[in-house]
Amino acid sequence: MAMDPDTVAKAFVDHYYRTFDTNRGGLVGLYQEGSMLTFEGQKFLGPAAIANKLGSLPFQQCRHTVVTVDCQPSGPQGGMLVFVSGTILTGPEDHPLRFSQVFHLLPTGGSFFVQNDMFRLNYG
Amino acid sequence: MAMDPDTVAKAFVDHYYRTFDTNRGGLVGLYQEGSMLTFEGQKFLGPAAIANKLGSLPFQQCRHTVVTVDCQPSGPQGGMLVFVSGTILTGPEDHPLRFSQVFHLLPTGGSFFVQNDMFRLNYG
Repeated sequence: MAMDPDTVAKAFVDHYYRTFDTNRGGLVGLYQEGSMLTFEGQKFLGPAAIANKLGSLPFQQCRHTVVTVDCQPSGPQGGMLVFVSGTILTGPEDHPLRFSQVFHLLPTGGSFFVQNDMFRLNYG
Repeated sequence: MAMDPDTVAKAFVDHYYRTFDTNRGGLVGLYQEGSMLTFEGQKFLGPAAIANKLGSLPFQQCRHTVVTVDCQPSGPQGGMLVFVSGTILTGPEDHPLRFSQVFHLLPTGGSFFVQNDMFRLNYG
């Protein structure tokens, strides 16, 4: 893949949150067997457990707005760390909540999968 | 190292912020040549550049308070991702500022060094 890491990171972030907001079940394809999600301190291992958690969040619709994206190569494996801050709106009457999220992407067959995913709301 | 990852992560986080708050120059020993810091979107490569940035922050004294620590194994290299949220107080008259920070630790000679470090203030 010839794109520079920041371009890959931005493309991944766009894809991830667009999928989350329009077709949450489609996120399952981004994870592999060893993938782990930590969501507000709770750990989920593997695509099935992760998809089940994301699908069971207590809102049907949401909209993410990304504010910052930082990216670094993660070491000799050819992976990338992506660090996102933004807001999530979960209902028309609600206030947006601020969040931070970390993804560790590892290469797989010319693309990337999510090895690590850690999500935290930033309570104000 | 026989400790479980969460114990290692908490020990690292305690050590990192205690060193930051009492002997900031001592942080340089945690980084190696390929280490990268992204501080509020600015990238610094290698221990000298990282230590120079941390030493030049516009406050002499500060106090970090850690609120959450999440940790995951980062893949086959034996590394660990550590995701921290907390507050930093930079002067007796100031309000604490909220921050999020990600560390990617890689093993080296029975211990760990910081391969990746990404810091963001979470403006309210």
